[in-house]
Amino acid sequence: MFLDEVFAKEKELIGKEIHVHGWIRNHRPQKEFGFIDFSDGTCFKHLQIVYDKELADFEQIIAYKNGSSVEATGVLQKSEGKGQDVELKASKITLLGDCPIDYPLQPKRHSNEFLRSIAYLRPRVNLFQAVFRIRSLAALAIHEYFGKNGFVYFHAPLITASDCEGAGEMFQVTTLPLDKLKGEVDYKKDFFGKKTSLTVSGQLQAETFATAFSKTYTFGPTFRAENSNTKVHASEFWMIEPEMAFVDINGNMDVMEGMLKYVVSYCLEHAKDEFKFLDQFVEKGLIEKLEKLVNSKFTRVTHEEVITILKQADVKWEFTPEYGEDIAKEHEKYITEYFDGPVFITDWPKDIKAFYMKQNDDGKTVAAVDLEVPGAGELMGGSEREADYNKLLKRMQELNMDVSEMEWYLNLRKYGTCVHSGFGMGFERLLIYLTGVDNIRDVIPYPRTPGNCDF
Amino acid sequence: MFLDEVFAKEKELIGKEIHVHGWIRNHRPQKEFGFIDFSDGTCFKHLQIVYDKELADFEQIIAYKNGSSVEATGVLQKSEGKGQDVELKASKITLLGDCPIDYPLQPKRHSNEFLRSIAYLRPRVNLFQAVFRIRSLAALAIHEYFGKNGFVYFHAPLITASDCEGAGEMFQVTTLPLDKLKGEVDYKKDFFGKKTSLTVSGQLQAETFATAFSKTYTFGPTFRAENSNTKVHASEFWMIEPEMAFVDINGNMDVMEGMLKYVVSYCLEHAKDEFKFLDQFVEKGLIEKLEKLVNSKFTRVTHEEVITILKQADVKWEFTPEYGEDIAKEHEKYITEYFDGPVFITDWPKDIKAFYMKQNDDGKTVAAVDLEVPGAGELMGGSEREADYNKLLKRMQELNMDVSEMEWYLNLRKYGTCVHSGFGMGFERLLIYLTGVDNIRDVIPYPRTPGNCDF
Repeated sequence: MFLDEVFAKEKELIGKEIHVHGWIRNHRPQKEFGFIDFSDGTCFKHLQIVYDKELADFEQIIAYKNGSSVEATGVLQKSEGKGQDVELKASKITLLGDCPIDYPLQPKRHSNEFLRSIAYLRPRVNLFQAVFRIRSLAALAIHEYFGKNGFVYFHAPLITASDCEGAGEMFQVTTLPLDKLKGEVDYKKDFFGKKTSLTVSGQLQAETFATAFSKTYTFGPTFRAENSNTKVHASEFWMIEPEMAFVDINGNMDVMEGMLKYVVSYCLEHAKDEFKFLDQFVEKGLIEKLEKLVNSKFTRVTHEEVITILKQADVKWEFTPEYGEDIAKEHEKYITEYFDGPVFITDWPKDIKAFYMKQNDDGKTVAAVDLEVPGAGELMGGSEREADYNKLLKRMQELNMDVSEMEWYLNLRKYGTCVHSGFGMGFERLLIYLTGVDNIRDVIPYPRTPGNCDF
Repeated sequence: MFLDEVFAKEKELIGKEIHVHGWIRNHRPQKEFGFIDFSDGTCFKHLQIVYDKELADFEQIIAYKNGSSVEATGVLQKSEGKGQDVELKASKITLLGDCPIDYPLQPKRHSNEFLRSIAYLRPRVNLFQAVFRIRSLAALAIHEYFGKNGFVYFHAPLITASDCEGAGEMFQVTTLPLDKLKGEVDYKKDFFGKKTSLTVSGQLQAETFATAFSKTYTFGPTFRAENSNTKVHASEFWMIEPEMAFVDINGNMDVMEGMLKYVVSYCLEHAKDEFKFLDQFVEKGLIEKLEKLVNSKFTRVTHEEVITILKQADVKWEFTPEYGEDIAKEHEKYITEYFDGPVFITDWPKDIKAFYMKQNDDGKTVAAVDLEVPGAGELMGGSEREADYNKLLKRMQELNMDVSEMEWYLNLRKYGTCVHSGFGMGFERLLIYLTGVDNIRDVIPYPRTPGNCDF
């Protein structure tokens, strides 16, 4: 029996014999009896196994080492000890897989840096049991939210010959023999007959699904070959990119808010033990922060209004806020504090935003929206998309984009164009916010960053 | 209002005014009135919009072209016509986005080859409305099945420095300037400081999660740089790879069977209109085939037993069945017919299977299992994994594998090793089976195959 089932049926199982298998997280043998802190990883809770000299092989059992896998049979009983309601009084404990004494995960506090170096073992420790289960729950919640709301899940292509926004550096994908190349490359000989890269966004392709199914979303990996060694950048990460036809920027914000609240609520409800742990050991007040978000009203203001507020603020800014320019981290922080909650900032200067965003009538701004969340900064960004063929074409030409490669994208504006909107959320940004863990390397099972591609 | 909502509340909405937006799939204007076959893609059903000369702009409306986007207001009423229960009696129809008369998707039958060439528009036609909604539902069903059963969703890394099985040709991932390379490549200068590729499987990494959470699964893209131009090979496809600790080959088969039946049932229940269409136009008997699968008992036989059955069969084989060898398509077909249902074939000759599979005591076979499904052939493959450090190391050495790169994988057998099993299912193989569509290019939104990387 797995432990998730044991704890779910705890009350009816008391007094009954059960059989479990898992790992010794911490073994405290005494002269006459012993305690095993036992887990199979199916839930955050561990089971305490108690045994005593009555067992024929007591002398062998007390030598079982931390990290070993065992199976145990016994009666589940109420526990007298602190920290658990039930425990297993073992009638039999059998060693399945031994573990040497130099096992790196002895029960003590390890630094996250050290655990990163043994990333293949770290999911066994409490912190990563919590983080990666929440990662799984958050992913499930996202699928559930969109499924319930009639969105079609769209698998965007990963290998691509086009560059979504010219936004990010791209990894090249090739089967050419690199050690035999000389000078100019003949891409006709490459696998796809042209130069190909790993996608930086599935949005443009998602728009083709939005104009067919009305409501669609991607949830898949994206890539950036940026040489950024920060706590928030990874070369390979997962993105959620919903895209909706007949939905304007206001409807877009409704979905951004609805999705975020759904995911946070879902995780809080399904990972109570994990959040208690994270609140205690990683970010004090984490649960309160998340509950506050779920119950908060999201403010909607324009970029221009934000700049006015920042300019009027009695603060000595490191970066002077300016109309027509981007805002800095310190501004984001101030604004969420000013409104005491999450803030949608809309209608951004067009020159600092992407080519596909709907141009507003003022000629200066686009119908873009960023969501600023207290304690997280910018968590999502989106926009109404430019639905006018000529305006979009003109903008692409202004930016010297290769229009011929993008004819299909432009054509969406030719064949029954419609108001449509979408947004993107970096999944790991959400997880950093959700778990309180501050380094993206610790919310991805096997992070890829410049110079690092282990396991 | 989106159409999925309209049809869900159809009965209570009759006699009420509603407002919809979507596309004209087929327009049949008459002298005094007109019919619009209207869809917004949120459900397979279309809505018939009827209008007549009472409308002030009747003369403009009759000129609205197929493919245009419109919004319509009117009262939902019972339909007298064939093929629908309700229709919209329009009081207003407004053109949102025009569509030229050379729009490629005029209402007539198009070949799948032609539609592939306009893959960005094909989700608008019935066939691909059905296929891609079922793709979405099947993905959701898979997440739901594993979520309900306590599996942790694991995002395997896509960029990797290791080669899972030596099984498939790999795409190289690089940021080196290809046109400036000369002779031997210095990978220290590449982005990750070593040679990297796109993964062919997330299984090995998933095993690290299985030995931490007991139950885990991947669902993500995988890649093969094979120069195969067949109906079942793509260079980029999605895989599901569950991995379970304390589960042997029999428990593995239980999950394979349970998952498949769950997904098929879920899709049949949630895409009734889509399956009716596919049954009528793509594969006669599709629904019966799928319902039979859900209700069938899966047979379990060994490879040796299968060969004996094949040898005794009164059939002139193109390929002679042999103990110790793989079986051919004709054998797969015979065996599922012989047992009149899905068949798990277990205990395969070790020399034709992967290094990580558990070696049976006979020294000749491994605890591998393939699932053969009537009308689909091999749908999944899995195995119990070799849990013994020394046996696994010896096998890797026999196969001349680079053991130093795989130390972390071997170590899973050193630190509390346990019986564990897993399997893999190509998501597109499942979709070919589910939809009756016979070409993998038509169940992936933007297929990547040798020489093809469009959109």
